[in-house]
Amino acid sequence: MAGALPRSPLAPERLPELAPIAGVRLAAAACGLKKTGAPDVLFVALDPGTTAAGVYTRSRCPSAPVDWCRRALPKGSARAVVVNAGNANAFTGQAGVATVAATVVAAAKQVGCDWEEVFVASTGVIGQPLPEDRVARHLPDLAKALGEDWAGAAEAIRTTDTFAKGATRTATIGGAAVTLTGIAKGSGMIAPDMATMLSFVFTDAAIPAPLLQKALAAAVDQSFNAITVDGDTSTSDTLMLFATGQAGNPVPGGNGDLADFQRALDDLTADLARQVVCDGEGAQKLITIAVKGAISDRSARRIGLAIANSPLLKTAVAGEDANWGRIVMAVGKSGEPADRDKLGIAIGGVQVARDGMVVDGYDEAPVAAHMKTRSIEIEVDIGIGRGHATVWTCDLTHGYISINADYRS
Amino acid sequence: MAGALPRSPLAPERLPELAPIAGVRLAAAACGLKKTGAPDVLFVALDPGTTAAGVYTRSRCPSAPVDWCRRALPKGSARAVVVNAGNANAFTGQAGVATVAATVVAAAKQVGCDWEEVFVASTGVIGQPLPEDRVARHLPDLAKALGEDWAGAAEAIRTTDTFAKGATRTATIGGAAVTLTGIAKGSGMIAPDMATMLSFVFTDAAIPAPLLQKALAAAVDQSFNAITVDGDTSTSDTLMLFATGQAGNPVPGGNGDLADFQRALDDLTADLARQVVCDGEGAQKLITIAVKGAISDRSARRIGLAIANSPLLKTAVAGEDANWGRIVMAVGKSGEPADRDKLGIAIGGVQVARDGMVVDGYDEAPVAAHMKTRSIEIEVDIGIGRGHATVWTCDLTHGYISINADYRS
Repeated sequence: MAGALPRSPLAPERLPELAPIAGVRLAAAACGLKKTGAPDVLFVALDPGTTAAGVYTRSRCPSAPVDWCRRALPKGSARAVVVNAGNANAFTGQAGVATVAATVVAAAKQVGCDWEEVFVASTGVIGQPLPEDRVARHLPDLAKALGEDWAGAAEAIRTTDTFAKGATRTATIGGAAVTLTGIAKGSGMIAPDMATMLSFVFTDAAIPAPLLQKALAAAVDQSFNAITVDGDTSTSDTLMLFATGQAGNPVPGGNGDLADFQRALDDLTADLARQVVCDGEGAQKLITIAVKGAISDRSARRIGLAIANSPLLKTAVAGEDANWGRIVMAVGKSGEPADRDKLGIAIGGVQVARDGMVVDGYDEAPVAAHMKTRSIEIEVDIGIGRGHATVWTCDLTHGYISINADYRS
Repeated sequence: MAGALPRSPLAPERLPELAPIAGVRLAAAACGLKKTGAPDVLFVALDPGTTAAGVYTRSRCPSAPVDWCRRALPKGSARAVVVNAGNANAFTGQAGVATVAATVVAAAKQVGCDWEEVFVASTGVIGQPLPEDRVARHLPDLAKALGEDWAGAAEAIRTTDTFAKGATRTATIGGAAVTLTGIAKGSGMIAPDMATMLSFVFTDAAIPAPLLQKALAAAVDQSFNAITVDGDTSTSDTLMLFATGQAGNPVPGGNGDLADFQRALDDLTADLARQVVCDGEGAQKLITIAVKGAISDRSARRIGLAIANSPLLKTAVAGEDANWGRIVMAVGKSGEPADRDKLGIAIGGVQVARDGMVVDGYDEAPVAAHMKTRSIEIEVDIGIGRGHATVWTCDLTHGYISINADYRS
């Protein structure tokens, strides 16, 4: 599947340079889950002392790997991560649980750690059994090949992604420099809470697990929970953050010390989230929706997501049609407090509607020109409060239909 | 717009014979809102004594006509209905309110009634002013042309519909025969609560307004609130039921007397709702989703709608791909109580998954054959309760994208 599709027109020119993280070594291999024979298993070894944080799908039918991660996370410690692409090991019953167990046991043996220090993630087709030792049997060889090929790691976790995704940031904690590097995959079934989205972020900072979890929860709200491709929620969404502690920074005792780290983490996760949207299946345009004037930030995000999930709005953008009536429709259907007669809309910086109706002498020409660009900016002023939020999505095109009508056959 | 698209492959062979209703006369004309010059205004005159019931969009940004209907309905009496297609008169500010007022005043003058006995509905483009007298000025001529051309009425209210929609049923109340005839329009922006869906049902039964409202509310739950095309909710959805009282039936004093009428009304509204789905923009297949074993009927319907609104499921059906993993995904994302390991799925009557995993020796051949038909049957057993519901939707095809990317330009 990977590689079969043309690279998204919204893809960055190349994968950014990904800084290695002290205490993190990784390796990828092909275990035959991808029909192309491309690498589809990633093994990450983490030095002793690494803390862990995680956020997972809210699906009521999560995959076996997600169940395992939820169970292991409270220990707050990590020594290995195993990811496979091509089979989600979801809706595979007790056989799926056995496969996770076999993988965890094999990985723990390689790095010499407790089972609860191993995290696993799988992405790909749902409902197809993943043989018990399919991934596990590759771990001994992978353990010998561990290195710093971050680009290879980003490649290995792709499924329908048309480009590999990664980002690096730096920050300081108590005067010491720390580095964060993350990789991500995802292009369909992308919706808040979260997506068939896998993302793994690593830092050399020393941060106790409870603080790390708090930082990750804050970051996800304005990144992976603010994007949508098709409103569908995967059984397998996984976002994890690992801190190896090798930067030697003073261990933060409260949130204050972590302000700059939080800024960098927010920025990095938002970058990765936007890369996922830019690889939305069939995407031709990135759509940024900024909502203000709602009764709360939460309400603003819900309104933004209602707009971002509207097939009618997304097809209008695909058709380069400034059909702002569909924005009004979506605000109305969000169910959030709004007053039709106070609503304002701007597209590409041009005011289109104000106080519930089209502006006097509305000239569609500059808006029509904006609609022909790759990056569409929609601003909505609800006009009744101070809540604001920004969400990202992509257009809904013939490409989405083609990809999804043919994915499995 | 109307007529430009090929007739849906799911359309009935022809519009059913629509029985006239004593006390109802109607006429249609062209006022130039449809570019094709086809009739786009419908005027319905109702004899004195007609009672009214209505259900409207739950959009927080409803159209001016919907605002008016909500205001007029408590009187429970109706003498005229004016519908136009081609302009929704939504998000048109005070100008839109003035247009509704002008239309109501003109219609009241023609039939000699109070303003609150006139109901109006508009469907079409949002945000484009509808000149104040555009519809009103045609009413004097329409009043002279009133007759029983029900097929013409069903035609006049179409927008992107590829076929006219109507149905007739009979029932008895207290031994007296009564007739119900309804027309409907809608093909995009179709979602529960409700759709850019207009539907007007007329009966010659004598039923007091409060009972009529109760009957309509019950009928809508298992018809228009159980269908979805794209999950988008219109600003203009309107379903109304008018009872002229000319059948001379004993006036029902309670629900018991209305049982047979309710059955006929349920059946008629479900028929109209399915006709709307069969005209879903770009639809090639009707999808019927029967959910059982949920904790309640309400929960079952929500699960059904989560499946019905999943772009991934709908594109899989378009691709004739029995990708049942996407059904699991949608059950999970519904947020309703479910147990992954108790879930069962059948497609086209063939059991695919049971107790949370694919059935032993699953043979995809008969399911693949079913996927090639026009009418796809999906059964989901949540396995934890007794709640059940059936919902209807259509597949998501290239046709949907083409229609919606180009609608307004």
